[in-house]
Amino acid sequence: MQARMGSPVHRVSMGDPWSRKVHPDIESERHQQSFDVERLTNILDGGAQNTELRRKVENIIDNDPVFSLKDNYFMNHYERYEAAVKKKFHIQMIAQHLGWLEESRELAYAFRAVSGDMGLGLHYIFLKAIRSLGSEEQVAKWAPLCDNFQIIATYAQTELGHGTYLQGLETEATYSADTQEFVLHSPTITATKWWPGDLARSATHALVQAQLICSGTRRGMHAFIVPIRSLQDHTPLPGITVGDIGPKMNFEHSDNGFLRLDHVRIPRENMLNRFAKVLPDGTYVKLGTAQSNYLTMVVSRVEMLLSEIIPLLKKACVIAIRYSVIRRQSQLRPSDPEAKVLDYQTQQQKLFPQLATAYAFHFVASSLLDFFQRSYSAILDRDFSHLPELHALSSGIKAMISDFCTQGAELCRRACGGHGYSQLSGLPSLVTRVTASCTYEGENTVLYLQAARFLVKSYLHAQAAPGSTPKRPLPQSIAYLTAPDLARCPARGAADFLHPEVYTSAWAHVAVRLIKDSVHHLQALLQSGADKHEAWNRTAVIQVQAAKAHCYYVTVKSFTEALEKLDNEPAIQQALKRLCDLFALHGILSNTGDFLHDGFLSGAQVDVMRTAYLDALLLIRKDAISLTDAFDFTDHCLNSALGCYDGNVYERLFHWAQTAPTNTQGNPAYEKYLRPLLQSWRSKL
Amino acid sequence: MQARMGSPVHRVSMGDPWSRKVHPDIESERHQQSFDVERLTNILDGGAQNTELRRKVENIIDNDPVFSLKDNYFMNHYERYEAAVKKKFHIQMIAQHLGWLEESRELAYAFRAVSGDMGLGLHYIFLKAIRSLGSEEQVAKWAPLCDNFQIIATYAQTELGHGTYLQGLETEATYSADTQEFVLHSPTITATKWWPGDLARSATHALVQAQLICSGTRRGMHAFIVPIRSLQDHTPLPGITVGDIGPKMNFEHSDNGFLRLDHVRIPRENMLNRFAKVLPDGTYVKLGTAQSNYLTMVVSRVEMLLSEIIPLLKKACVIAIRYSVIRRQSQLRPSDPEAKVLDYQTQQQKLFPQLATAYAFHFVASSLLDFFQRSYSAILDRDFSHLPELHALSSGIKAMISDFCTQGAELCRRACGGHGYSQLSGLPSLVTRVTASCTYEGENTVLYLQAARFLVKSYLHAQAAPGSTPKRPLPQSIAYLTAPDLARCPARGAADFLHPEVYTSAWAHVAVRLIKDSVHHLQALLQSGADKHEAWNRTAVIQVQAAKAHCYYVTVKSFTEALEKLDNEPAIQQALKRLCDLFALHGILSNTGDFLHDGFLSGAQVDVMRTAYLDALLLIRKDAISLTDAFDFTDHCLNSALGCYDGNVYERLFHWAQTAPTNTQGNPAYEKYLRPLLQSWRSKL
Repeated sequence: MQARMGSPVHRVSMGDPWSRKVHPDIESERHQQSFDVERLTNILDGGAQNTELRRKVENIIDNDPVFSLKDNYFMNHYERYEAAVKKKFHIQMIAQHLGWLEESRELAYAFRAVSGDMGLGLHYIFLKAIRSLGSEEQVAKWAPLCDNFQIIATYAQTELGHGTYLQGLETEATYSADTQEFVLHSPTITATKWWPGDLARSATHALVQAQLICSGTRRGMHAFIVPIRSLQDHTPLPGITVGDIGPKMNFEHSDNGFLRLDHVRIPRENMLNRFAKVLPDGTYVKLGTAQSNYLTMVVSRVEMLLSEIIPLLKKACVIAIRYSVIRRQSQLRPSDPEAKVLDYQTQQQKLFPQLATAYAFHFVASSLLDFFQRSYSAILDRDFSHLPELHALSSGIKAMISDFCTQGAELCRRACGGHGYSQLSGLPSLVTRVTASCTYEGENTVLYLQAARFLVKSYLHAQAAPGSTPKRPLPQSIAYLTAPDLARCPARGAADFLHPEVYTSAWAHVAVRLIKDSVHHLQALLQSGADKHEAWNRTAVIQVQAAKAHCYYVTVKSFTEALEKLDNEPAIQQALKRLCDLFALHGILSNTGDFLHDGFLSGAQVDVMRTAYLDALLLIRKDAISLTDAFDFTDHCLNSALGCYDGNVYERLFHWAQTAPTNTQGNPAYEKYLRPLLQSWRSKL
Repeated sequence: MQARMGSPVHRVSMGDPWSRKVHPDIESERHQQSFDVERLTNILDGGAQNTELRRKVENIIDNDPVFSLKDNYFMNHYERYEAAVKKKFHIQMIAQHLGWLEESRELAYAFRAVSGDMGLGLHYIFLKAIRSLGSEEQVAKWAPLCDNFQIIATYAQTELGHGTYLQGLETEATYSADTQEFVLHSPTITATKWWPGDLARSATHALVQAQLICSGTRRGMHAFIVPIRSLQDHTPLPGITVGDIGPKMNFEHSDNGFLRLDHVRIPRENMLNRFAKVLPDGTYVKLGTAQSNYLTMVVSRVEMLLSEIIPLLKKACVIAIRYSVIRRQSQLRPSDPEAKVLDYQTQQQKLFPQLATAYAFHFVASSLLDFFQRSYSAILDRDFSHLPELHALSSGIKAMISDFCTQGAELCRRACGGHGYSQLSGLPSLVTRVTASCTYEGENTVLYLQAARFLVKSYLHAQAAPGSTPKRPLPQSIAYLTAPDLARCPARGAADFLHPEVYTSAWAHVAVRLIKDSVHHLQALLQSGADKHEAWNRTAVIQVQAAKAHCYYVTVKSFTEALEKLDNEPAIQQALKRLCDLFALHGILSNTGDFLHDGFLSGAQVDVMRTAYLDALLLIRKDAISLTDAFDFTDHCLNSALGCYDGNVYERLFHWAQTAPTNTQGNPAYEKYLRPLLQSWRSKL
């Protein structure tokens, strides 16, 4: 136990003889560390105490056979669901036993160690929704029921025919003053609730988003607690039709279901009423803004970045980079042995920008979470002043992070060649899991457009009083919209492009220009007679482009700010600054058109920048293994034949494959089809 | 039967009552056809007779319950393998019965109708390899055994530790003159053959690529026919270890296996000897070039473009575009009903470039196949003059097509929002299938670099005699490298950018500039003292960029040439020209930096071009459904709840989900884990 903490040994979880030795090709990489990996791990964890606590929890999980992931890639849909529920059950028993509280660090670390496939995750979304949208009494009633798992709950918003556009939802909740009940009903097939996790076979209660109708008036979306299954025998309650929506690209464990409501009655108290309520006689009383319903989504969007989405990219980087110092291909020089693929410029160009992105997102998501936590309690107290900025920023950053993590994980997967296509590499499941985040909790294009709308409106607001400062200053994340701007990038030599001010201001310049462009296009269309909605639609493509540039700017800026706080860790600061440089320059070089368009950069400057960028790849090459080791994922939670700490790639892949059921069971297809086929020629004779 | 041909009815294969009516939202799209869809189908099929034959074959398949895809998305790994072998067996029986010949159109159409999941596909790769690399006697001996399925064969090249770099393969074939045998051996774990399809549980024979060693000298890679399983009882032969490599991202039906050889002896006649042979005494005789071994790969690369890769993008387009005229979301104007999502600019911007790409690739792959067929017979007669161009062109085009089809299919999938994540949409399986093509049959980055090397060398060759025409003219596909070039794009108004000469020459300009840049960087590094291999590696990123631009140019050019042949079909020509415009302009607008870099385009020109591009989206909008209908995929082979011809999306998704085994079987997890969890709070009391 003692040897485990902080030493590499704790990372090796496999007991095979060939895994007792670390592969020399990865060992040699670790001999040239330019910084203390353990210190960087502590920084990422938010302190050495957290690292210690995390490893303690991971140790418990990794040594408990219930949480073994050994057969994960051999399971079918149903087995994955059952295993996920089993893990959830056991985690709850451990948590009760060890006193891990709901929302504690211990449970978060346990979730990380289990590596995702755990059931009943929607239970907490339900709980958060109750806390966000429910009155004090409602929280007091329902939260303990959730905490004790006296009920199993889910959150039912999306419908078969309706997604991100909340107002389009069709499920109805009609208030009946006679009985003081709401009647929940699915009037059409498209009104069927579709996708909620834990709904198909698990939940006893659902928080149902529905159109409130009282005293004959439609009042828009409100949230209702609906019991759906018997607490006695788990059968669906009267009026409830519930089931599984069928197989998916991944998330087989998550039990996504459908729900149809046939005039289901619930008591008046089951409408969440922090921001609106219905009096016994059917009078509707509004206590908050129309936006308050979006709060649950904002909470989920922000929290899942660090707990769910970014770790998937980090893991993909760890696996692909470790594999790339073991895999050798072709000779760089005729007399040499085959070269490590990580020594090829093209491989560095694929993987290092992803590594830089993983770090950049770690810092921007942390800073967004800080901002969210500062704003959240004010919102619960009905101070909505930060909500527009929070909504726009979390929408844009969620879209950007999920887009880039998906693209990056797939790039890492392909960078492992054929083996990246094997489930045993761990990469296919990372990719098919992360790509879901581009559409769940808000489809990315819609989210970018929401961010863009906020940018355009804020810009128009700032311009409203030309020459003078507008009355209310712009929110902090968009203050740069009115800051002084350079028309030309002043950088000349390659070293100039490594100044954070240079690339941060380059991103600011392009974001502002694209926002202005969006505004000008919009205004030109309006002036030429287009109506408002047509004008917004016909400028949507450029608006998305503007929102993307804005989010890139915010991310570069937050990365540079995080670096400034590392002055007392110069070696780590230097290693991370190279990633920050790479992230900023890679973004520019992938979008040079936007920077050349108005002459902010010249073609010659782009060439110089590319040189700076390619040089940065070589510098990062030396730290590549250390920078991935610093994420400190255990072999258990990576569950990858290619990505284990010891680098014994080929032995592990070979031995894992031997355990596949296809190799341990017979082949009935031989008797049924292959033998008859091999003998069919005789009939032609 | 009669009604089926050419009428929409033949496309609707589902018998449910709600599917008897075509959804009005898709019906109305078909009322505004600007061209004859059936004629375009005929053009894509290469003639009306082919369309007729194809539908005849599809009708046979679609009406045979053996080929039903109904339960496809509910199957586990093993079931998919067994179903694929079963289908193969039945196809062979049908082919024997109806006299469909190997490599006939009928079998190709049957493959299309079966929609991919069919076993024993490597059998034909083996056969092609025998035909390419074997002597006349060897073809005479082995081809009939294959044709009659007296053996089941596979092609074993890739090893656990070695992929695209053929020279790195470790498997050894040592000639033993005493017995006139080759001894096949896997000397290390990394030498294990890994990935060959049909190997794990099916094949009786393998074509093994191995290092030939004769008279103590290593002679490089040669191909050997190795019996691996008993023809009596299918057990592995002595010295053979064979099995499954485990689960993958898709292709569960394809039975990818591993193979270890422990001093396995085969007769001298089992080395394929069209291009090299070993005499009884061990003398090595060379009859062709070192490149001849690549021939099998070139054959596969070219043929799979039209038969496997491009249809996956076409299908994704059909599904996403049909769904996008049924799906409605938000209002474009407050008083309107929710709008079809295809009416949003962002949705058009996602989908139409993919549709344009599918058409562009159809034409470029057809023209590459023509070129291949013209060169192939010459190569078999040992005239290798076209091989370098064929190899470079097929490498680059394979890389481009697989990259873009993967990216495009995933884009289509995400454009369907959450439902695109459901297997029942058909999209996840298209995506996970097409992405494999980025690494199989040559990893794409390596292929781009091979194309780039040819471009750089050809350019240097052309420059060797400055001012004069080089002695041998450049091969046709790269003749533009020395053609006169414009320094500035002459287009001014939006209409100018719709001239094929304008955008074709823009692509030529950028490709040539990037090739020149690669050459200059390479030469600068060499002059500064870098050795040759280092210089190639350190310019790899820009070389890849150059190869990509070249391939884009070739594709735009072949699309414009295909259009020229449609002068007698003006309505179709016009509809396709818009796609050609869109393909060319979308590529430029996605890479504006390359065009702005040297001032070939100005920022103002880019803005005008964007206007032309956005206008083109609106024009294509009108034809979108017709252009996807023209691919003429049956509902059976699309196997998509979102993409059926009749547009009854929601009913189909709902009803298909009901048939999932998760809805028809019990839930043991309730008794095991959910009930105990729901009751665990009592123990706390």
